Parts: sequence; C-alpha cells; structure tokens
Amino acid sequence: MTTIKDVAKLAGVSVATVSRAINQSGYVGVDSAQKIEKAIKKLDFHPSEVARSLYQKKSKLVGLLLPDISNPFFPLLAKGVEDKMNEAGYHLILGNVQEDMAKEQDYLKAFMQNNVAGILSAVDGGTSNLKEIPFVLLDRVATKKEYAVHGNDFEGGILAAKTIAEGSPKEIVLLVGPKSIKGSVERLKGSVSVFKEENLTYQLLQTDSFQFDSAKKASLELFEQFPKVDSVIASNDVHGLAILKEALRRGIKVPEELQIIGYDDIPFSQMVYPSLATIAQPAYEMGYKGAELLCRIMENQPIDKKIIQLPVLLKQRETLRKKE
Amino acid sequence: MTTIKDVAKLAGVSVATVSRAINQSGYVGVDSAQKIEKAIKKLDFHPSEVARSLYQKKSKLVGLLLPDISNPFFPLLAKGVEDKMNEAGYHLILGNVQEDMAKEQDYLKAFMQNNVAGILSAVDGGTSNLKEIPFVLLDRVATKKEYAVHGNDFEGGILAAKTIAEGSPKEIVLLVGPKSIKGSVERLKGSVSVFKEENLTYQLLQTDSFQFDSAKKASLELFEQFPKVDSVIASNDVHGLAILKEALRRGIKVPEELQIIGYDDIPFSQMVYPSLATIAQPAYEMGYKGAELLCRIMENQPIDKKIIQLPVLLKQRETLRKKE
Repeated sequence: MTTIKDVAKLAGVSVATVSRAINQSGYVGVDSAQKIEKAIKKLDFHPSEVARSLYQKKSKLVGLLLPDISNPFFPLLAKGVEDKMNEAGYHLILGNVQEDMAKEQDYLKAFMQNNVAGILSAVDGGTSNLKEIPFVLLDRVATKKEYAVHGNDFEGGILAAKTIAEGSPKEIVLLVGPKSIKGSVERLKGSVSVFKEENLTYQLLQTDSFQFDSAKKASLELFEQFPKVDSVIASNDVHGLAILKEALRRGIKVPEELQIIGYDDIPFSQMVYPSLATIAQPAYEMGYKGAELLCRIMENQPIDKKIIQLPVLLKQRETLRKKE
Repeated sequence: MTTIKDVAKLAGVSVATVSRAINQSGYVGVDSAQKIEKAIKKLDFHPSEVARSLYQKKSKLVGLLLPDISNPFFPLLAKGVEDKMNEAGYHLILGNVQEDMAKEQDYLKAFMQNNVAGILSAVDGGTSNLKEIPFVLLDRVATKKEYAVHGNDFEGGILAAKTIAEGSPKEIVLLVGPKSIKGSVERLKGSVSVFKEENLTYQLLQTDSFQFDSAKKASLELFEQFPKVDSVIASNDVHGLAILKEALRRGIKVPEELQIIGYDDIPFSQMVYPSLATIAQPAYEMGYKGAELLCRIMENQPIDKKIIQLPVLLKQRETLRKKE
C-alpha cells in the first residue's frame, strides 16, 4: 500500500508538508503543493481515513440507528440519509436496533468508539448522554432541545380520521401504535379530535410494536374483538396490509364492508389489490433533510430550525368507501 | 473524555504499559494488569477504536455492500450479517449501491480508506482489485476462487418449474432476471431443464433489474405480450407481487386462470391475498453464515468450504393451481 512517506519521497518534500497539504491545515508553498498533487495522482495514493480521523479528532463516519430495518419505511429513510451523506463525503455505520434498548446502547457506544462525526437516530431512547456529538432524530420527537426531522403526526391523525369519516363509518377501530413513541400519541390525539367534532364513536386497539409479528397478531385480534368493524385506521402500513389480507381471507368485501387506511406509504401499499389508502410520510425526504441538518451541525453552520416538521399527505386508494 | 493517559496516571504505570495491556501485545506484569483493569473500570474508559485501528492496522469495522436496500430481501440478509458481526464485536459500514456500478467503486474505496477488516458484498461487480482484504460474496457467485454464500439457484429454477408444471400449464411465461447476474442464468437453466424433460413450451420475458420500477413495467408488459398466459415464474417476489396485483386488477382469477410463483420469500409474500407461492431463499441465514465465514477469514482460522451453497425451499401458497 502506498503511504504518505512514498508521496513525500516522490514529491521531494517532508512528510509533515504532505500531511499539511492533505489536511489543508497550515502553510504549504504553491510549488510543493503542485509536486504533492502530482505524486498523489501518480502513486494513486488514498490517505487513510483512520489516520485522518485520529489527526483531525473526527472521522468521516456517521452513525445511523434504525428501529427495524425489515419495515420498508426505514430502508427508504436510510436511502435518503445515505444519498445526502454521500454527497457530503460521509459514510454510514449501520445500527439496526430491532426495538431492543440494550442493542441501542451497544451501538451508541460503538459509534463513539469509532469516533463518528455525528449520529442520526430513528429510535426513541436514552440518547441524553451524547451531548458532545452532533445528533439528529429522524421520524421521532423528543424534547424541544434536540434536533429532529419528523412528519406532522397530529395532522396525519386528523387526515386519517377525516378520510374515514367520509365513508359513513358505523364502527370505527383505531389501532394505536406503541405508547412509548410520541408520534403514536400525537396521531391518536389528532384522530380523536376529529371523532369528537363529528360525534363519531370509536374503539381503540392498542399494539405494542410496529413490526410484522405484531401486525399479524393485531389483524386476528381485530376481527375477534370487533366483529362488526367497518372502518379501520391502522398504526402503520404493515398493520394495514395485514388487516386487508385477513379481511379478504374472511370474505369481507373491501372497501364496501370494511374500509382501511394505513400510515407511512411504503412501496408495497401500492402493490396489493385493492391498493391500500394511507397517510404518506416523506421517508426519503425525511432522511435526506435529517442528514442535511446533521451536516450543518457538524460543520458549525447556522441553523434556522432545530425541529423540521414535514407535511403528510393523503393517498386516496382502493380501500376507501366513496362519500355517500 | 477519558484518555489512555488518565488510565496510566491512576494505575501508576506508563502509557506504553496500558497500551500493551489494552491491545494484549507484549508483556504486562500481573500487578500492573490488575491496576490497569481497576483504573479502566473506575474511569469508565473506552479505548478509542480509531486509535486501536491505527495501532493494529485493522479496524473493528466491516463493509457491507447491498444492491437495493428497498427490496426486503436485503434488509433480512443485512440482519443476519449484523447479528453475527455484533456477536463477534464488529460493526458495519453500509453501502447501498442501488444497482449503480460507479457507486459500488466509491463505496469500496471508502471501505478501504476506513481500514475495514473485511467486506461482505451482495453485488456482482468489479471487486477483483481487493485481493488484500478478506472478502465474501452473499447471494452471488463469481469465480471459484472467491468466498461466497448463496442459495442453490439451479435447484431453485428446477423447483419453480416442477411446481408450475403440476398445475396443468398451457402458456408458461418465465421472467428472466438481469443477465449480468449469474444466479438468474442458473435459475433459467434449472427451469428450462424441467420444461424440456416434460415437453412443455414456454416464453421468456427478459427484465433488466430486480427493483420495484422494473416490476411494475414487467407486469404491464406481461399481459400485453402474452394475453393468454396462465402460468408465471417470476424473477423475484417483488415481480411476483406486481403481477398478482395486475392480474387481480384485470379481473383474472388467481390461481384458476393464472398461477404465479415468486422467488426469495420476502415477508410481504405472505401478507397478500391470495398469498404468493415462492421459492424461499434463507436470507437471514445467508447473511449470518456469510458473516461467519468472513470472521474465520479475518481471524485466519481454517476454512472448510470457500463456497457455501444453501438449500432453497418451496413455499406452497395460494397462487398455485392444484394438481389435476
């Protein structure tokens, strides 16, 4: 492997001069700079990021914490993060927490040991001891002191309830996401505000996870506990799809006998028949903007807003009854 | 932040001694070792991975290249990789190539600059210049010289064709995956061998990607080019699901008028109605075993097999016609 010594030798300058040139710190004469550049090209020299990291006390690595990589919402979010970080010259260390708090702490420790320049996290958790490292929450809100990019959950809850209300619901069931996640609570508040305004009765079905296993379980519980249900607001698309499948399996006509709306707009929601109506969160954009915000923090640039709230959008598809 | 100097001071030994103790290289007296251990605990000292990486000339980071993180097959694979790597104390730098060759080269360069201890790649591509870094291919076969863990594609092709043959097919269409991917070619060979043996005629529909956009396009092309198709072997589950949706949208009865079999067994294949029959590849196991193999290479342990071929499995679901 080519080292900095080889470059110095070929350029006829000292190692310290090459180091200053590479790290753009301190004075390097124009002549020397040109010689070094030529030598670097000729030797196809790639300065080790590890050495650079130690020298500059920060690396070109950024940690990314995801709650569940198998839910397609998060790969989309990750893609957004990755595209922006690539543009900015950073690379991602992946931490897939799988809704496991202990794993989260392990990852945060590993991120710090690898001297990451910043962290992006889509996990609600104990990150309060990271004050020294630039940190941005994705798809989550914590305190007003933290940096975050998330969808407007309250508005999403309102949109979902208004849409369901238009399809003459007689028995509404609202699946509530994990209570520990603030977004779930906000969505619930939004939906309930609509039901109260429109004098609609509703039932709640509490779920403890956004994952696949929970979705299957909830789809069975739903029809056992509420056999007359004719309208469902699902906690996410994975749950919405599981309920759609279970309804069709039971011979329930969708949307005539049961209308369903999901949350997130994962690609699969368009790939089923009838296609799943949903409240779209801009996953890719959320990742991209979160990464952009983190870059500004890492590079000490001025920040307009610590918390960026992205608009959500109704996707009117085939699981909704028409307005009568 | 606590440094190695703080530990040395509290333990009453030299920095070099602490360094030897941490890196388990060279002699450290029993007394000193105990004092160092106590000091490390008391100060809650975490040796910087960056410093350790530079010292040991290798890091605890491993690069993971994926072709398309939005296809749920790959997050499952990544989960398997991650679980094994976590056990072994490594962390992953993620590279999502999105079927883009230039991005692949950028990631490989970044992996090397970050001094990764090894690389896992589920991407077919130009990795021949990485001879010095331990390298394992996932879900791909290249040359017999390389390390790889992959499913038995030829057998998968045979299984898919035999299954379709049992449902009295009159017009079979086989979607062929990208030609550049050896697995696609192997599956095609396997299926064709069955069709020849059973004297069945078949049509081919070439696709150039395994991604979502390609799936939607292929599902439209399929019914335009082959309006009488009654049996489809899809190149992967994403394509199988797109075809299922398009068939239902057109009022085609599945499986009575059209039977479909996919490939991979992503979680969503069970979440549609009728559920998609498929050839299951053990994605999680593939990732886990690939990571295991890489660990053995990185740690210079003896290797039984350079190429591990995992069995595939038929998932008999609702998109298949019964044997007559």
